[in-house]
Amino acid sequence: MTKIPYKIYLTEDEMPKKWLNLRAFMKNKPEPIINPGTKQPCTLDELSHIFCTELAKQELNVTDKYIEIPEEIQSFYKMYRPSPLVRAYNLEKALGTPAEIYYKFEGTNTSGSHKLNSAAAQVYYAKEQGITKLTTETGAGQWGTALSMACAFYGVDLSVYMVKVSSQQKPYRKAVIETYGAKVIPSPSDTTEVGRKILAENPETGGSLGCAISEATEVAMKTENCRYVLGSVLNHVLMHQSVIGLESKTALDKYGIKPDIIIGCAGGGSNLGGLIAPFMAEKIEEKNDIKFIAVEPASCPSLTRGKYAYDFGDTGKQTPLMKMYTLGSGFMPSPNHAGGLRYHGMSTVISKLYDEGYIDAVSVEQTKVFDAAVMFAKTEGTLPAPESSHAIRAAVDEALKCKKTGEKKTILFGLTGTGYFDMSAYQSYLNGTMTDYIPTDEELQKGFDTLPEM
Amino acid sequence: MTKIPYKIYLTEDEMPKKWLNLRAFMKNKPEPIINPGTKQPCTLDELSHIFCTELAKQELNVTDKYIEIPEEIQSFYKMYRPSPLVRAYNLEKALGTPAEIYYKFEGTNTSGSHKLNSAAAQVYYAKEQGITKLTTETGAGQWGTALSMACAFYGVDLSVYMVKVSSQQKPYRKAVIETYGAKVIPSPSDTTEVGRKILAENPETGGSLGCAISEATEVAMKTENCRYVLGSVLNHVLMHQSVIGLESKTALDKYGIKPDIIIGCAGGGSNLGGLIAPFMAEKIEEKNDIKFIAVEPASCPSLTRGKYAYDFGDTGKQTPLMKMYTLGSGFMPSPNHAGGLRYHGMSTVISKLYDEGYIDAVSVEQTKVFDAAVMFAKTEGTLPAPESSHAIRAAVDEALKCKKTGEKKTILFGLTGTGYFDMSAYQSYLNGTMTDYIPTDEELQKGFDTLPEM
Repeated sequence: MTKIPYKIYLTEDEMPKKWLNLRAFMKNKPEPIINPGTKQPCTLDELSHIFCTELAKQELNVTDKYIEIPEEIQSFYKMYRPSPLVRAYNLEKALGTPAEIYYKFEGTNTSGSHKLNSAAAQVYYAKEQGITKLTTETGAGQWGTALSMACAFYGVDLSVYMVKVSSQQKPYRKAVIETYGAKVIPSPSDTTEVGRKILAENPETGGSLGCAISEATEVAMKTENCRYVLGSVLNHVLMHQSVIGLESKTALDKYGIKPDIIIGCAGGGSNLGGLIAPFMAEKIEEKNDIKFIAVEPASCPSLTRGKYAYDFGDTGKQTPLMKMYTLGSGFMPSPNHAGGLRYHGMSTVISKLYDEGYIDAVSVEQTKVFDAAVMFAKTEGTLPAPESSHAIRAAVDEALKCKKTGEKKTILFGLTGTGYFDMSAYQSYLNGTMTDYIPTDEELQKGFDTLPEM
Repeated sequence: MTKIPYKIYLTEDEMPKKWLNLRAFMKNKPEPIINPGTKQPCTLDELSHIFCTELAKQELNVTDKYIEIPEEIQSFYKMYRPSPLVRAYNLEKALGTPAEIYYKFEGTNTSGSHKLNSAAAQVYYAKEQGITKLTTETGAGQWGTALSMACAFYGVDLSVYMVKVSSQQKPYRKAVIETYGAKVIPSPSDTTEVGRKILAENPETGGSLGCAISEATEVAMKTENCRYVLGSVLNHVLMHQSVIGLESKTALDKYGIKPDIIIGCAGGGSNLGGLIAPFMAEKIEEKNDIKFIAVEPASCPSLTRGKYAYDFGDTGKQTPLMKMYTLGSGFMPSPNHAGGLRYHGMSTVISKLYDEGYIDAVSVEQTKVFDAAVMFAKTEGTLPAPESSHAIRAAVDEALKCKKTGEKKTILFGLTGTGYFDMSAYQSYLNGTMTDYIPTDEELQKGFDTLPEM
């Protein structure tokens, strides 16, 4: 049998030339995005006011199974892709498990995560349309960094609304974004109506992704030749991220490796949706029986404890409505929660697949996540992002189950990024001040109370 | 003609199985290391008190052209190597140069630099010899991080003396090292005799690499079953780093690419020595006529303004004497100098090659270095370390010369690492508070006054 290398790199020729549009494979499509005013499905025209036209088209496309990646975006991808598919030999050894563990490592680019895959695409389309200015939000900071890199490359102006608690925890993230020439505004801010309103109600808030989205969209709507871009949740973002899964599948196929379990962390769902895309397409076609696991923080448990309902994408209730697993757009994650994965909702694609039983979900507490993160760092070398470490935690747990049962399962997980900008979280873990937080049913109810009447 | 990909990755089979020992190729060997007490060349026995035996042997080996890389170290290398050889298509385009620019990127591992190549080897040999504790120094922090990763992997205790100004500029570097389980002591400290002496003389000092080396060696000498390890300057370190050059050469040879110019930043010389190794071996054998350029900071100009003389490796004058280009072990770089490359001396191998005219050297001021760094980040994506950006600066200057003359030269430079932990330096560049510093002849004389009588 061929010895599997530590790292499998595809050649440029083997890199994907088309994105995979998972919705086109789904027997039951996700519910359509709704205009909260008309209560009717959003039209292309409506979406084009906020997103650039090509992305709005992609957002509504539920029929084309594959969409060509423009040459220019393929070139951009070649700057930092393919990402390695790594065999975790040392982690397997440390765990003493018969399981074979692989991870797709998206953190070798400067943004430190997979987010650049969609940033490259979104800025390219904006530029093509003659858009000169973009706004966005960022939580943990990877998306803001990724977008600033793409905007520097294509010469487009960028304002980043950064969740205030993240901008405080990660001053150097802000500096990286600024190095690439973008403007960073801690959110909530006094630069928008919605920001001023939130600050008036709750001056001490550390902010939330939903709130930062409200601010960024408000500015995009009010500024000429400006559009809003989002790093997760949306259908077109998940589709761009399918390069993760497509590369992984090509690499595994080259060596005849068939995964039994695929694990991804889930905040808005972009990494998970991208990683599983080609494997899930096959599962829907009954060509495999892979177990898919979404891992979320116990402090922000949209899949495991949320409701499957139409909700706004943002705290300010300005966006269209999406049917998704949600904690309510008014849900604010506890400030003691480190890192990203703090979004109240979940991609409509992931939500639908979860609702139909194609995906399992687990929630994990952050001290256990950091246990796994430090173990991973010491055995595999790479210092993982807190978000990615949710997937590591679940992969370790599955591998330990195999150790008990003696099963030789093949586990693939997504290592979405690196933890260089999360050292204050690591410090609190190391000095024992990190705490766990599980919202009570009453606390969750407050979020659910903000769900819109339909 | 074959299209050159953006990134060339070797397969595991193509990775080097032997290190290249450049001294064995040199017609005139570097002058021997001298015991300052006896004024005689150091013996293996003497060196073995401070270094573990296998490394001491490598340090003295000037005859074997190649040395086998033990299987275990090859496995460690496979965790994070091969590193990519990148064609800088976008930088070339931005510069409008006919030159072809390549860089070997060593920053994709968590230490963020090439330093891990020697850390892996040194900790392995220590472990093999039954050493349970290591001490070292770190300046910019890459070496300390790299060593902490290797020590975590092999289960060896580690104390890192970190140049005080670096530990203040880079608190999160310290946190990364601690995450891997090592102890960090800002230097000078009150934990050693030499540290207390330096603090008494100059309580406000930001420290220097030479001073941190004194502290780390003092502790290693006084502690049972403990050895000292160094991340640069020494012959065995340069030899371990030859994997950089060997991988680069294999990758270039695969595509029939012949470099005209090879550029590396030079602090102690480990990256430069490793990058040039196989190319320089050929040049010595008159098989090529490559121009080699060492790039150093104008604030710490050991090659361009130093003396070629026997000197101590450390401020405390505890180490053996090495004949090298040096500013004197008492030289303290200006605290406004950002990043690494702050060592007073230079590898004896690089010094000898420079003295014999095999290598050119240039010095550059840091604002011009950061100009190049930001341009590189925006065009090539990767945020470079300040050290690496010295090489970028020189590569850009060479490419611009080609633009003027129309020459289509092939330039290879070493991108030693990433700048994630150097954001305070980037901030000072961006907000215009970064200054340049060129020591006056009088200031340099103070350093030369500390040179030993021979």
